[in-house]
Amino acid sequence: MVSEMDPQRLAEACAERMWSTDAASIALGMRIEQVGPGTATLTMTVRDDMVNGHGSCHGGIISSLADSAFAFACNSRGTVTVAAGFEVDFIAPVMLGDRLVAEAHETVLRGRSGIYDVVVRNHEAVVAVFRGRSRSLGRPVLEDS
Amino acid sequence: MVSEMDPQRLAEACAERMWSTDAASIALGMRIEQVGPGTATLTMTVRDDMVNGHGSCHGGIISSLADSAFAFACNSRGTVTVAAGFEVDFIAPVMLGDRLVAEAHETVLRGRSGIYDVVVRNHEAVVAVFRGRSRSLGRPVLEDS
Amino acid sequence: MVSEMDPQRLAEACAERMWSTDAASIALGMRIEQVGPGTATLTMTVRDDMVNGHGSCHGGIISSLADSAFAFACNSRGTVTVAAGFEVDFIAPVMLGDRLVAEAHETVLRGRSGIYDVVVRNHEAVVAVFRGRSRSLGRPVLEDS
Amino acid sequence: MVSEMDPQRLAEACAERMWSTDAASIALGMRIEQVGPGTATLTMTVRDDMVNGHGSCHGGIISSLADSAFAFACNSRGTVTVAAGFEVDFIAPVMLGDRLVAEAHETVLRGRSGIYDVVVRNHEAVVAVFRGRSRSLGRPVLEDS
Repeated sequence: MVSEMDPQRLAEACAERMWSTDAASIALGMRIEQVGPGTATLTMTVRDDMVNGHGSCHGGIISSLADSAFAFACNSRGTVTVAAGFEVDFIAPVMLGDRLVAEAHETVLRGRSGIYDVVVRNHEAVVAVFRGRSRSLGRPVLEDS
Repeated sequence: MVSEMDPQRLAEACAERMWSTDAASIALGMRIEQVGPGTATLTMTVRDDMVNGHGSCHGGIISSLADSAFAFACNSRGTVTVAAGFEVDFIAPVMLGDRLVAEAHETVLRGRSGIYDVVVRNHEAVVAVFRGRSRSLGRPVLEDS
Repeated sequence: MVSEMDPQRLAEACAERMWSTDAASIALGMRIEQVGPGTATLTMTVRDDMVNGHGSCHGGIISSLADSAFAFACNSRGTVTVAAGFEVDFIAPVMLGDRLVAEAHETVLRGRSGIYDVVVRNHEAVVAVFRGRSRSLGRPVLEDS
Repeated sequence: MVSEMDPQRLAEACAERMWSTDAASIALGMRIEQVGPGTATLTMTVRDDMVNGHGSCHGGIISSLADSAFAFACNSRGTVTVAAGFEVDFIAPVMLGDRLVAEAHETVLRGRSGIYDVVVRNHEAVVAVFRGRSRSLGRPVLEDS
């Protein structure tokens, strides 16, 4: 039963359930590297269909990676949770072939609202910082069957 | 010569130049419906590879449409301009097959910095509001050849 | 009774009720110039106790003016509504003696959540843009007695 | 000479110089508890002239405390630096008499742009999170005389 799972196993089970239907993250070539209670790390390599008119990775695609990391982090505690919105700052351009790593962690969780911070790195350099605001819907990610 | 173009023709010429290399917007199935001085309207229909683990359109993909509208609006005056960051609020869920319309307009332009607001609608309903911060790089979008 | 008021009279009655206890806005020398359904305009003149270490108006004080305009706008429909957060961009410095005008309007209202945009001007120049996120608490601003 | 100072002494000297003219932070009863390279901690107790129409501390005043902590942190490295904007989320209400502690730290610094995160606490509880975007003006906070 869900209520008996330890937090790490619960986070992994939620991620597995969500990933199986997350067509968008799969289509963008993302990979889940790690999940835990309130945390997630995803990676993505910039493909030639992710580049914009200035020759660098489209900001919306960088944000999509961060948004997916945010989603896995904020659903990791077992309750279906959606993004109310987010704020992103682009620090450095990202180019074709770069491998991005997005690390999300829970900054605040209070009642149904949460704040999650995501740092996106290209090797060691920070290329974007992202702050997501979450809202829990109250129902479980995993349903007993 | 670029300096002789009227603002509307300049906006259209900049959009055409940028679009030709904007692999990301093309891959996401976006279409430019309108551009003008400081404005752009783009559309996108939600495909099955844009849906997330909760069955609705991935927030990063909605943001990508808004970010592209922002990019075409802030480059419409002829100077290469990039996103410094943006803020997005999700108002209502978006589902498979929905056709989104993102309208961007210039709210403030002062020196090299600008603020652009984008409203994303699904039929008449507002589904997201987006505020982009732009930074001009000072060089022309169109180069005389 | 509140339910019989027209929207304009309701907005004015809510503003009057809120203003009577709004010690912070009063202490900062703000004035309400206009309120209506989903809108409010407030003014404030920059005093010598509002200036920061760089000789210009403290950004938090400019934001306080915008935040008050937002508060009067989002409570204008008769339901107690609080700020969940806001985003502000500073466009131009503001100096001692400048008279600021903050105009707030409702951008989106859906269920208990709203987005309000505030533009702060110094004479004709935009000096700050502010976007507030509101959350209604469901109880009336005015209580029948 | 400034260039010979160690980073901690430089941060303290910058804070002292800024504080002497920071009429706004002084008028709001703030105190600097700590400064260091890229960091600052400020405190403020909520007075009866900081309360809004709902009986809790005005969000703009909470933001002013965070904005001041941000200002001391981003000027701590010796270069005059201003706020380009900020984002704040209110987590819990703050009441008359509460003593707030705002801790700012540097999240990213690249060229003339920086991102600073501030957490505002009321005893142990987080009541607000704030993210400031800074822009350096290039001239020194301290001038040799």
